[in-house]
Amino acid sequence: MSEFKVKTGLAQMLKGGVIMDVVTPEQAIIAERAGACAVMALERIPADMRKSGQVCRMSDPRMIKEIMEAVSIPVMAKVRIGHFVEAQILEELQVDYIDESEVLTPADWTHHIEKHNFKVPFVCGAKDLGEALRRINEGAAMIRTKGEAGTGDVSEAVKHITKIKAEIQQYKENLKTESDFAAKATELRVPVDLLKTTLSEGKLPVVNFAAGGVATPADAALLMQLGCEGVFVGSGIFKSSDPEKLACAIVEATTHYDNPAKLLQISSDLGDLMGGISIQSINEAGGKNGARLSEIGW
Amino acid sequence: MSEFKVKTGLAQMLKGGVIMDVVTPEQAIIAERAGACAVMALERIPADMRKSGQVCRMSDPRMIKEIMEAVSIPVMAKVRIGHFVEAQILEELQVDYIDESEVLTPADWTHHIEKHNFKVPFVCGAKDLGEALRRINEGAAMIRTKGEAGTGDVSEAVKHITKIKAEIQQYKENLKTESDFAAKATELRVPVDLLKTTLSEGKLPVVNFAAGGVATPADAALLMQLGCEGVFVGSGIFKSSDPEKLACAIVEATTHYDNPAKLLQISSDLGDLMGGISIQSINEAGGKNGARLSEIGW
Amino acid sequence: MSEFKVKTGLAQMLKGGVIMDVVTPEQAIIAERAGACAVMALERIPADMRKSGQVCRMSDPRMIKEIMEAVSIPVMAKVRIGHFVEAQILEELQVDYIDESEVLTPADWTHHIEKHNFKVPFVCGAKDLGEALRRINEGAAMIRTKGEAGTGDVSEAVKHITKIKAEIQQYKENLKTESDFAAKATELRVPVDLLKTTLSEGKLPVVNFAAGGVATPADAALLMQLGCEGVFVGSGIFKSSDPEKLACAIVEATTHYDNPAKLLQISSDLGDLMGGISIQSINEAGGKNGARLSEIGW
Amino acid sequence: MSEFKVKTGLAQMLKGGVIMDVVTPEQAIIAERAGACAVMALERIPADMRKSGQVCRMSDPRMIKEIMEAVSIPVMAKVRIGHFVEAQILEELQVDYIDESEVLTPADWTHHIEKHNFKVPFVCGAKDLGEALRRINEGAAMIRTKGEAGTGDVSEAVKHITKIKAEIQQYKENLKTESDFAAKATELRVPVDLLKTTLSEGKLPVVNFAAGGVATPADAALLMQLGCEGVFVGSGIFKSSDPEKLACAIVEATTHYDNPAKLLQISSDLGDLMGGISIQSINEAGGKNGARLSEIGW
Amino acid sequence: MSEFKVKTGLAQMLKGGVIMDVVTPEQAIIAERAGACAVMALERIPADMRKSGQVCRMSDPRMIKEIMEAVSIPVMAKVRIGHFVEAQILEELQVDYIDESEVLTPADWTHHIEKHNFKVPFVCGAKDLGEALRRINEGAAMIRTKGEAGTGDVSEAVKHITKIKAEIQQYKENLKTESDFAAKATELRVPVDLLKTTLSEGKLPVVNFAAGGVATPADAALLMQLGCEGVFVGSGIFKSSDPEKLACAIVEATTHYDNPAKLLQISSDLGDLMGGISIQSINEAGGKNGARLSEIGW
Amino acid sequence: MSEFKVKTGLAQMLKGGVIMDVVTPEQAIIAERAGACAVMALERIPADMRKSGQVCRMSDPRMIKEIMEAVSIPVMAKVRIGHFVEAQILEELQVDYIDESEVLTPADWTHHIEKHNFKVPFVCGAKDLGEALRRINEGAAMIRTKGEAGTGDVSEAVKHITKIKAEIQQYKENLKTESDFAAKATELRVPVDLLKTTLSEGKLPVVNFAAGGVATPADAALLMQLGCEGVFVGSGIFKSSDPEKLACAIVEATTHYDNPAKLLQISSDLGDLMGGISIQSINEAGGKNGARLSEIGW
Repeated sequence: MSEFKVKTGLAQMLKGGVIMDVVTPEQAIIAERAGACAVMALERIPADMRKSGQVCRMSDPRMIKEIMEAVSIPVMAKVRIGHFVEAQILEELQVDYIDESEVLTPADWTHHIEKHNFKVPFVCGAKDLGEALRRINEGAAMIRTKGEAGTGDVSEAVKHITKIKAEIQQYKENLKTESDFAAKATELRVPVDLLKTTLSEGKLPVVNFAAGGVATPADAALLMQLGCEGVFVGSGIFKSSDPEKLACAIVEATTHYDNPAKLLQISSDLGDLMGGISIQSINEAGGKNGARLSEIGW
Repeated sequence: MSEFKVKTGLAQMLKGGVIMDVVTPEQAIIAERAGACAVMALERIPADMRKSGQVCRMSDPRMIKEIMEAVSIPVMAKVRIGHFVEAQILEELQVDYIDESEVLTPADWTHHIEKHNFKVPFVCGAKDLGEALRRINEGAAMIRTKGEAGTGDVSEAVKHITKIKAEIQQYKENLKTESDFAAKATELRVPVDLLKTTLSEGKLPVVNFAAGGVATPADAALLMQLGCEGVFVGSGIFKSSDPEKLACAIVEATTHYDNPAKLLQISSDLGDLMGGISIQSINEAGGKNGARLSEIGW
Repeated sequence: MSEFKVKTGLAQMLKGGVIMDVVTPEQAIIAERAGACAVMALERIPADMRKSGQVCRMSDPRMIKEIMEAVSIPVMAKVRIGHFVEAQILEELQVDYIDESEVLTPADWTHHIEKHNFKVPFVCGAKDLGEALRRINEGAAMIRTKGEAGTGDVSEAVKHITKIKAEIQQYKENLKTESDFAAKATELRVPVDLLKTTLSEGKLPVVNFAAGGVATPADAALLMQLGCEGVFVGSGIFKSSDPEKLACAIVEATTHYDNPAKLLQISSDLGDLMGGISIQSINEAGGKNGARLSEIGW
Repeated sequence: MSEFKVKTGLAQMLKGGVIMDVVTPEQAIIAERAGACAVMALERIPADMRKSGQVCRMSDPRMIKEIMEAVSIPVMAKVRIGHFVEAQILEELQVDYIDESEVLTPADWTHHIEKHNFKVPFVCGAKDLGEALRRINEGAAMIRTKGEAGTGDVSEAVKHITKIKAEIQQYKENLKTESDFAAKATELRVPVDLLKTTLSEGKLPVVNFAAGGVATPADAALLMQLGCEGVFVGSGIFKSSDPEKLACAIVEATTHYDNPAKLLQISSDLGDLMGGISIQSINEAGGKNGARLSEIGW
Repeated sequence: MSEFKVKTGLAQMLKGGVIMDVVTPEQAIIAERAGACAVMALERIPADMRKSGQVCRMSDPRMIKEIMEAVSIPVMAKVRIGHFVEAQILEELQVDYIDESEVLTPADWTHHIEKHNFKVPFVCGAKDLGEALRRINEGAAMIRTKGEAGTGDVSEAVKHITKIKAEIQQYKENLKTESDFAAKATELRVPVDLLKTTLSEGKLPVVNFAAGGVATPADAALLMQLGCEGVFVGSGIFKSSDPEKLACAIVEATTHYDNPAKLLQISSDLGDLMGGISIQSINEAGGKNGARLSEIGW
Repeated sequence: MSEFKVKTGLAQMLKGGVIMDVVTPEQAIIAERAGACAVMALERIPADMRKSGQVCRMSDPRMIKEIMEAVSIPVMAKVRIGHFVEAQILEELQVDYIDESEVLTPADWTHHIEKHNFKVPFVCGAKDLGEALRRINEGAAMIRTKGEAGTGDVSEAVKHITKIKAEIQQYKENLKTESDFAAKATELRVPVDLLKTTLSEGKLPVVNFAAGGVATPADAALLMQLGCEGVFVGSGIFKSSDPEKLACAIVEATTHYDNPAKLLQISSDLGDLMGGISIQSINEAGGKNGARLSEIGW
């Protein structure tokens, strides 16, 4: 089986699950206990990185290792866009997945990592079909919406998953001739076969998770009902007043996403949720709260 | 009777009434005692949400439940625009009405909730006839002016009700031929029959309340005399120095809206009313006090 | 005699007088003692309203009533532009005049009050002939310049009275044919007869007072010599260090407006006058000190 | 002899003199003792007015009277541009000259005072020949450069006197035919005879003083050598550390303006002069230090 | 051998090495012990210079001398762009290399130093092939990417090395005829032979190091894998919490740049790295954190 | 010999020297002891004037006199551009040279002083050949680059001397015919003979010093090697931590400007030099640190 098949297969095993950002082994253990299908090990959660305006890089391998040793579920870690040496280091560390993430400070504003050169599966963010297919074409084995990390505002994740589904739908209807396919592939800067398979299957050829701004069980269920196959939760859990309770609730909501009774029961009495910052106030402040992360990447 | 008929019938029962924002069971009891026809249960009143710049979501179902148990009058609760899972949860909670409200942070900037999929009646905000008919077409059983929530400035609510009445009047006079109707329906993005029924009846096919910036008995009476069929009062009551007295006064003013003697008597000695913030100063501050809520929604 | 005649007749009785803003019965008594021909009862004087940026509404009827009971001279009170219910309430309260005032926060940005529907006489502000005639056409029994309330800078009041006189003069000279009159009436959005009567009499068909920024006896005399038939004084009096002395001085100046000897004697030793804020600094501050009130209304 | 001749004659008597701003009788006495040919009585000196952003009006006649009684030399006082009632009051007070001054807050942004209607001579500011002739045409018996009052920066006064002389020179050379004169008179909005007399005499038909920003003996001598016939000194003297010494020095410099030895001796050891604010920093601050006074008037 | 050959030869000896900024003899000893191939002696590291906004000049020769006496490895020192006298002084001091650096305040905004006039080898920064060849043409014996010194953000260095390699590749493919070469040489303002040799060799004719924003071992390895022949590290080392450990790690990473196992081992547990400031926040702050150094030079 | 010849002769005697700003007799003595060829007596050094934003005028003759009596070397003093009375006073005081300086607040924004009317030699600043020749044509006996006084950034002085030399070179090559010369002379607003002599001699007909931003011995030597015939040092010396040592060093560097060994020896261990402010940060601050002095004058 091609190496790429193995990698996308690994990602398939996460389907229906919740992947939680954790910054300490203790948080990783809480996540595992709550039923997370994997954890994302990083030094600072997106909400704090956004405010600092500093350079955000790969986390210290020692800290990632401690988290790997604390849990049995897969451990992911982030590298800067284009920083293939950070990826070489994490592959060497044998993390389970690498997230080439716009939440860190890009190391290369022109090229993403040639992910085919690696054995470890990569997940990348995408805000539309073009970005998703370009990452897959570079070797990404899993896609996630970019959403707007660190805000607790789910509307960008909703926009991205809706856009990817709508574009697939629209191109399926409108692209008739070979030259139509060729023109659209050129426009999206991807091979025409990759475009064709995606349209014929009516979905991305790799697992597609939701990410960016998920802060409540209802948010997770909303994105699952919109067609996402699992959920990343960043700042939302450990910025709330009762992380473990919220972690369990979000796992349950992602599983029982279309069972209102269940959703009502797990949405009650969750204590104070992440206040976050609405995307509208970021726009109004002319980017003063850190530029729109979803605008990073191409 | 079609489910939609049942829902609009429920809304008809609120006609001539006052629906008050409440954030605790105690406030709900005050509202009920003052004669409110229903209460809107929410964690923070619009004036505070506007200043916070944070993400405003559906309130904690536990708090809504406590309010439902504290009063016998119907209880409404708000969901974010487009967040159909929050709506599923509140339907499950058996709230009496759901307000898909621009006062919360929109979860979807492109689609409103498909309200026909729900049994519980929905109320939506509208600043013109197009918005009203589009919400009704999606299944809204009740409309309210958007006004400018959290300001205590009634002028936007006046503008919206005047505009809806003026557009109905104008289209009644100008639309003569089938192609006129078709063109206008396309422009408003609504079915032509819904447009025709509205114009022939000379009013919206569902109950139309006033909302946004009502802070005095005179404001309530003004909107009733302008053709509204009831009044939502948000921050106005519990930001005043004697909420119970003002609550009663506004209920009375909504009932006796065209009886100046009664209006004079109930408008006197109400203590300090909500200072609020004039819409003009919001415009001057270039949106620094939170963008214009009435601009949210489409 | 037509109701409108009665109302304009009442206003005529104020000619040559000074109408003073008062916020307490005690101030009303001072005003009456100083020779004011009427008082304007309101909760906050324009200078303070301007700075607050809050919603300014009709004052509490109880406070107005106390002022009516404290003095024998006529008592006026303000309603928001377009808020015909506030007007119904004050008519019910039997105030002597209602000021539909741009100094309060407009309740309707499109329609002024249909003043013909009321028995009580209305006074309205105008910055040019068009505004004056439109208010009269709606039933205003008295006009006052808008000036720039709350500034203590008389130059806007001078501009408005000069403009109204100049426009009357100019149209008298230039409008020859019926179509000239019709075109100008359409432009000013008023009936052609009202325009014709005004031009033939060479003055507005109702009493025309000065208002906005009058702070010294010399200011009052200046506006009387420019053709105003009386003077409103807002913040000027009670923001000065010796209100009673200034009140008497302004009354005397309005009476003896063309007697320099008298004017010299009453202009001396008045203590500290209202510092106010020059209109130029408002323009420079790009409206930060509250937008130009004279720009409100149409 | 025509009343205007009497008035311009009075002004002639000030030639070669220094007119000093004084805000108390004590300062007036110092000015007289130092040899001032007249004093300007006002409540606040230009530098302070400029910063306040408040409305600056005619000073209290009582204060002006005290100054008149304290000295034997002529006393001038300022009125707002266009405020002919303030002028009536000062004429009644029998001040020796009235300065219709851009340093106060204009009362009328369209019309200057009809100075022919008064017996008392007026002095007005001018930044070019057009302004000077328009003021003279309205009845001004004396002209002064506007300079930039309250700055201590002499460059604007230099610019205005140089411009007036250059325009007289240029029009003398270029205007040949009657139609040339008529066109220029229309452009300057003055009667053609007044223009002709000025050009033929090669100087204004009335006394022309320097004013605005004079802070040192050298400044006074500079403006006299440039053709001014006397000097107004505003904030310069009493903002310095030894007013009496500086006052005497400036009087001597105005008398011995072309005697370097004398000028050296009186320019030494004058202590700290007025720091003031350079016109360049006013421009850079985009008018934050009070708009350019020289721009006021037309 | 030509003097230029000697100089470029000296630079070749640094290949594969790490050159560290040091501001004291103690830091120089740490650098040497860590395996630095040379040190850059300067009074303030780029991150501090950037914030000061002051004039940054050649360091005090006495301080440079102390560093030269403290270590046996070559010592470099910086001169301002165009300040050939500072270069004469450092040559006299017998420093091993001179860095004509955009990090100091340029002394000449039009001309770089005529480096052929000196015996000591120069290193210059370049952000593209044109800048590199122009510096070489002036006599530079070594080139380094400009990157964005003092930020700890490696993305600019990545951009510059990638651009230089891409331009060499692109011109190799596209320039066919003599006139192609001549046109490009004129465009780049360099002799055509220098362009030809560079394209034929497929690399710059002098050693090309990475510089600007290197803060981690992974950064150094990334730039080496991208084709740099050694690494300058400015603020990165001594702004970290364990400079010696980081210095050793970066030396090892530069040597074993393509050995992931080695890279993983040396990247772990390095303590707190330089927070720095992302280039994006510099752009957002409109240059308030000091203009983009990479924009300096031409 | 023409008076102008005498004056330019006097200036020739300063060639190769250093003229130091001094604000007290003590500083003048230090300067003389350090070998200054002349001192510039002024109340505040440029760096402080720049920040004050106040009006900067001729210094108090008494202070200048004390400095003249404290030293035997020539004493210069500054006058405002266009203030010919300040010049008359200093000539009377018998200072050795007058600097008509853009560092003070210009008294006339159109005309420089007619320097031919004076016996005392003038020095003026110039940023290009046109300004230099215009000042010489008005009677300047000595020219200095404007540089950017009060910054400690030498790059503007480098720009100005390089520009003047380049323009002489360029016009020598390009101006062939009489009409070429005439056109260029008109463009530069100078007599054609003055242009011709300058081009034929290949240098200005008067001594040309460096000024503005010189802060180190290397700066002085740089400007001498670029063709300046001496150096003004403003804020640089007395803003450093060891003024006397720096003063001596700069005098030696100006003498031994092309002897690197000497330059190295005198550039070491000079203590803290003037931090100053780079011209780039002035540009970025949009002139908030005082406008660019070099832009003053024409």
